[in-house]
Amino acid sequence: MRTILIIGAGRSSSSLIQYLLNKSDVENLQLIIADISLEFAQKKTNNHPKATAISFDVFDKNERKLAIQKATIVISMLPAHLHIEVARDCIAYKKHLVTASYSSDAMQELDALAKENNLVFMNEIGLDPGIDHMSAMKVIDDIRSKGGKMLLFESFCGGLVAPESDNNLWNYKFTWSPRNVVLAGQGGAAKFIQEGTYKYIPYWNLFRRTEFLNVEGYGRFEAYSNRDSLKYMTIYGLDDVLTMYRGTIRRVGFSKAWNVFVQLGMTDDSYIMEDSENMSYRQFVNSFLPYHPTDSVEIKMRLILKIDQDDIMWDKLLELNLFDPNKKVGLQQATPAQILEKILTDSWTLQPNEKDMIVMYHKFGYELEGIKYQIDSKMVCLGEDQTYTAMSKTVGLPVAMATLLILNGKITNPGVQLPIRKEVYQPILKELQECGVVFSEEQMPYLGYNPDK
Amino acid sequence: MRTILIIGAGRSSSSLIQYLLNKSDVENLQLIIADISLEFAQKKTNNHPKATAISFDVFDKNERKLAIQKATIVISMLPAHLHIEVARDCIAYKKHLVTASYSSDAMQELDALAKENNLVFMNEIGLDPGIDHMSAMKVIDDIRSKGGKMLLFESFCGGLVAPESDNNLWNYKFTWSPRNVVLAGQGGAAKFIQEGTYKYIPYWNLFRRTEFLNVEGYGRFEAYSNRDSLKYMTIYGLDDVLTMYRGTIRRVGFSKAWNVFVQLGMTDDSYIMEDSENMSYRQFVNSFLPYHPTDSVEIKMRLILKIDQDDIMWDKLLELNLFDPNKKVGLQQATPAQILEKILTDSWTLQPNEKDMIVMYHKFGYELEGIKYQIDSKMVCLGEDQTYTAMSKTVGLPVAMATLLILNGKITNPGVQLPIRKEVYQPILKELQECGVVFSEEQMPYLGYNPDK
Repeated sequence: MRTILIIGAGRSSSSLIQYLLNKSDVENLQLIIADISLEFAQKKTNNHPKATAISFDVFDKNERKLAIQKATIVISMLPAHLHIEVARDCIAYKKHLVTASYSSDAMQELDALAKENNLVFMNEIGLDPGIDHMSAMKVIDDIRSKGGKMLLFESFCGGLVAPESDNNLWNYKFTWSPRNVVLAGQGGAAKFIQEGTYKYIPYWNLFRRTEFLNVEGYGRFEAYSNRDSLKYMTIYGLDDVLTMYRGTIRRVGFSKAWNVFVQLGMTDDSYIMEDSENMSYRQFVNSFLPYHPTDSVEIKMRLILKIDQDDIMWDKLLELNLFDPNKKVGLQQATPAQILEKILTDSWTLQPNEKDMIVMYHKFGYELEGIKYQIDSKMVCLGEDQTYTAMSKTVGLPVAMATLLILNGKITNPGVQLPIRKEVYQPILKELQECGVVFSEEQMPYLGYNPDK
Repeated sequence: MRTILIIGAGRSSSSLIQYLLNKSDVENLQLIIADISLEFAQKKTNNHPKATAISFDVFDKNERKLAIQKATIVISMLPAHLHIEVARDCIAYKKHLVTASYSSDAMQELDALAKENNLVFMNEIGLDPGIDHMSAMKVIDDIRSKGGKMLLFESFCGGLVAPESDNNLWNYKFTWSPRNVVLAGQGGAAKFIQEGTYKYIPYWNLFRRTEFLNVEGYGRFEAYSNRDSLKYMTIYGLDDVLTMYRGTIRRVGFSKAWNVFVQLGMTDDSYIMEDSENMSYRQFVNSFLPYHPTDSVEIKMRLILKIDQDDIMWDKLLELNLFDPNKKVGLQQATPAQILEKILTDSWTLQPNEKDMIVMYHKFGYELEGIKYQIDSKMVCLGEDQTYTAMSKTVGLPVAMATLLILNGKITNPGVQLPIRKEVYQPILKELQECGVVFSEEQMPYLGYNPDK
């Protein structure tokens, strides 16, 4: 009997747990589902005989050590900054570890110790990061094995609402952490390289410098640049590539309207607004506009942002009740970002019968025997319901699959790892395909940014 | 014989030292001028028999303690973050301290110890902060003593180029730290209150939300909001005031053009640009613009920023050689802000024969016996030459005057102080007037923002 400790029973653990429970007999697995809320953990067991729920506080040292000690392998689905204590205990008790989060500097420091103890610490094996790494490396390795030279790599991903549930003007609903959506892009300029030229975009221009993407059957999308695309050049072995760009996908028009919030300063999380609790939505908006004794909030906003009377952007703002003088914020000591999150949550919460959608899009440009080619690789995944969402599937399934592969000695390379090696991505991409996470690849003449050169 | 230790012999110490040397016989003063550069310190002695230059490294504990021990009173003209070690030694050796910088939290923590030892630690007694506090408190105290109730306080200040030396399209040259000019406004939203409504402006809107000011004989100016105006409400005893706003003065049109740098991200000091050393000015600009195989840097810039062909803003950019492909940045590992500073310094350095100018403008709104009034108080100060600049005069003279007043037992209130008490501002404002720093006050009906209410 192998015991898998799963820490964190949030929404993105549903598909992960379901997958492992389905394999529990064949693979001889026992699942311990640990969460700060025992009720949450119990719900996720689905009353399955091979699953046990425990109450678990990552800050309770004894509780943490005890649970990890008993496990054969540990999956941490905690928020990224909470992994490290779990990871240190995994070293102490010699347990493998799997997470879907970006590998931190603190995690990286455990590399030597993990190697010494022959432990696999697999990080970034969710959706983004995760499936993006794997599906990209598969194509990049293919191109290289044919003798091709990589010229361009662009990668886009977005968590969106499924077309059947897409019924607001923003074509957007929250399908993961609303707070992260509000803060997206903050904390430093976006950095990337296009045709050999390094490019930098400050936060306040990020949502005005989008690219368009077409996905057959799903129509047109747009993408804004992620923070630091450059660091992936070395990780992917693409140091000589001319174009490296990573972005976040939204429906066309989202970014232009979102830019209203950015421009006014509504996404700022660095200060507390005076008397936020008793503020109306209308007063919230007015805080970011010039004072005038008689001009309305609406006219001031249109003037400052130069929004024409017939601009659809205006209707998007109205849809959020942004100018409502009666709706109260009701949050004590709140930052602009927290208040905006509250306002958006009123309108953008996925309803029980609604479904989400994941879209991923890679572009690979390369040269082979003097001819330039491009491969576009696309994946769309739709949620089943509120529990088995596309997000839960695409984040959780690769985690579950990697866990089994490590347990079964198929993934053996020790140390702090990302899923960029063939032994990892090949079996997982294959199995994901069987679960409906399918990439369609299409080869075409090189389009790139500079096709004539 | 009283010994005054002056730490820091930079440009803003010139008038301060001249003033004290002029009084050295009558007042029985000995000056020790201390600087990291002995040469700088020596130059500032002007070969005066009462002045001695010493080499001084604030990080050399023994050197620092020795110098402070020998002094009767200490003036620190170091950059703001370097005062604290000096201040701690002043406590240890029981010396009064005078600085022209914003009082820090660390400085504030010494308040009890300074009081215990009956020491005056006078901070913020330069120009801004300094003369602004004093000239404002004088009028505010006058209004209150008549039984008036303060409604509005706005205060503006700017270091500019004198009209006779004002010969570029920006109507601006560097008259103090260029680095601080490039970084101005960063690090948090601007906060103020207008007619009872709290207002917040993000950095990227700061230079588009200016106010106009008229100064007779000098024409029109504009002002953008300083970081946190709200904290001065308590300091000035204006907690109930409806309007509180502090701003920085520029010539009209400066802010709109400066906004180009902000929008593109050229003032960012948080990351290092790739290969900054070999980059041309043109390549620097292109780093912040979208890639295109054939469109010029100029056309991309005009499009992104919507600059019309006949917009004078464009000529301002050309004047800086911003698009020059031959001028090299020549700075290793430089941030965008450092590179921009370099480019601006090429064009905005005050020439030997050129003069600077300080403009200060306060507005006071108040109600007396049911009638609303406004007082506008304005001060313009012109530099004499490159040594006795308006900046050096207005920063250094109040520091020197306060030092003498403390030495002579005229300022006695112990602890960490700002110059907001009558015993401080009354004699200093009077003496400043004799030195040509004159405020002209004008009473008028209340204009404010909401005259009808």
